[in-house]
Amino acid sequence: MTVSADEEVHGLRLRLLARVEERLAGVLDTERARWSAVDPRGASPAASVAHLVEAGGKRLRPAFCLSGFLAAGGDPDSGLAVDCAAALELIHVGALIHDDVLDAADERRGRPAVHTKHAAEHAARGWRGESRRYGEGVAVLAGDLADILADRLTAGLPPQARAVWNELLTEIVIGQHLDVAVAAESVVDPGLSRWIAVCKSGRYSIHRPLLLGASLTGRTDLAPVFERYGEALGEAFQLRDDLIDAYGDGGAAGKPVGLDLERNKMTLLLATAVRRDAGVRALVSAEEWDVPALRRRLTEIAIGEEIEARIDGLHQEALDALDRPGVPPAWRDELAAMAREVAYRDR
Amino acid sequence: MTVSADEEVHGLRLRLLARVEERLAGVLDTERARWSAVDPRGASPAASVAHLVEAGGKRLRPAFCLSGFLAAGGDPDSGLAVDCAAALELIHVGALIHDDVLDAADERRGRPAVHTKHAAEHAARGWRGESRRYGEGVAVLAGDLADILADRLTAGLPPQARAVWNELLTEIVIGQHLDVAVAAESVVDPGLSRWIAVCKSGRYSIHRPLLLGASLTGRTDLAPVFERYGEALGEAFQLRDDLIDAYGDGGAAGKPVGLDLERNKMTLLLATAVRRDAGVRALVSAEEWDVPALRRRLTEIAIGEEIEARIDGLHQEALDALDRPGVPPAWRDELAAMAREVAYRDR
Repeated sequence: MTVSADEEVHGLRLRLLARVEERLAGVLDTERARWSAVDPRGASPAASVAHLVEAGGKRLRPAFCLSGFLAAGGDPDSGLAVDCAAALELIHVGALIHDDVLDAADERRGRPAVHTKHAAEHAARGWRGESRRYGEGVAVLAGDLADILADRLTAGLPPQARAVWNELLTEIVIGQHLDVAVAAESVVDPGLSRWIAVCKSGRYSIHRPLLLGASLTGRTDLAPVFERYGEALGEAFQLRDDLIDAYGDGGAAGKPVGLDLERNKMTLLLATAVRRDAGVRALVSAEEWDVPALRRRLTEIAIGEEIEARIDGLHQEALDALDRPGVPPAWRDELAAMAREVAYRDR
Repeated sequence: MTVSADEEVHGLRLRLLARVEERLAGVLDTERARWSAVDPRGASPAASVAHLVEAGGKRLRPAFCLSGFLAAGGDPDSGLAVDCAAALELIHVGALIHDDVLDAADERRGRPAVHTKHAAEHAARGWRGESRRYGEGVAVLAGDLADILADRLTAGLPPQARAVWNELLTEIVIGQHLDVAVAAESVVDPGLSRWIAVCKSGRYSIHRPLLLGASLTGRTDLAPVFERYGEALGEAFQLRDDLIDAYGDGGAAGKPVGLDLERNKMTLLLATAVRRDAGVRALVSAEEWDVPALRRRLTEIAIGEEIEARIDGLHQEALDALDRPGVPPAWRDELAAMAREVAYRDR
């Protein structure tokens, strides 16, 4: 993230984010040590989670959680806000581990996916049983552990925050299930695909974390601000994701080359094109997608530029949402800077 | 369960167990209705969980949770104890759904396993992608949802109970991971296998649920009683499981015929035999198990009778544990009746 207009507010957020990293490392170290004492193999689930946490990631959800908390006037020395932000990252890592099994994805954050790594070890060592099942089993359990460690960190949540937390968890699973079902059944329903994308990106990554952070302080007046900001920016975030996949570098020129089309994925970008163009609609309604023809048609209708314009609009909507009494000016600037980063990132 | 010496106490437990059933049905109905409103497919994860809940099961964990709560003097009208007991059943169902993926088990509670059912539907309808991956993906998400609904039901846990709850969740995952690892690596380590069995059966099914129930009342003096009772009875429970697998009807005569040996599973029964007999030790240390030879040797050393005697001892240990001040006499009798049921069941 770039430096905000208000150095103090920005520094505060970064300082708390650094504490989130310490907390994550501490929890995972403790867990590894604890189960190693039973048997070295017992440390494996926590090690898998730690490996992915250490591999980086944008820490988007912790950043928005802490920002929601601080913007609502939360105490910067609060341990609970740091724990809650760390828990969001653990939930995210758990979801990624499970998603990679669901999608048969072999790589994550530049490293082999958990299931891939363990299936390969199983095969290399000639262990008993099927390598794929072993790798996937280890990954399912590692993802489960990430969720349980997150549960531990959120033990102290006040009731209102706990409701937001549980809602967030539920939405991830339902959104993911619908995504899997829609892909399998080749459903062409731009409205549903949009719902899924909003659920999996905007709400999960931005709106709910902001709300969760604010709910720790007991303040509820910022909820509508965070909802408008989060939903708009979340959609921009997802569209940027789609553009990065389609055009490689986040730009919108040339022909879409990314893997989403190859995988016949009804992205938010494609759902937008379907709504706008009968040619695209016809192509994705076919039994088998003609991917080269789809690429040509998307280029003809200049979908990249349209999506870029839509991102501009959503970015502006997010900024407008901040323009409300109750949002401290320094945090309005900080959240605006975060919106710019999210909407116009190139990776 | 049979009728206890004290009708009133027994009736109380059954009445609360009936409320657990209502609570489970209510939570799952609400969840199905809620996500059906988005898309009919959204109801699927909750429907998978409901299907397994409705298929029965012993409700062992809810029963012990409620007994711990009531024995510690908890208010019989407490909604929290019912919620907590229902949450334990959800966690159990979630673990079963994930376990069936890990073990490639096709049936559960007399119905097709969640992954099997959905893989079959995928294949029958000719949906896109691989049927196995689809079925397993749907099952992973359904298991995740069961855990999240359990999290919702435990929102009101006091801190002490929450710590017990989180410990229980962690132990399931670590025990399961070690089970998978030991099977894959063909580890012959009776001590470790014993640890896994105790973790996955006694603690998870009896000790922790009792402790969880008691911790809802704030009383801590029964913890040592429940620990001794739970650990002894949990081991008896697991040994009975192993006997039922080995001899079909829970009896201990004849030749062990069950699937655990076929699957080269280091059960508690087998770990006991390994410790006692060099012949068994040699057989399970071989690269490939000679299952017919192993069956013969286990019959020669009359392992069934030895395990039966060990169950008798553990059952007595559980009864002795109840013989302490602080345990209300009516609950001592009720828990003794439950111990008999668990140790001497035939299925």
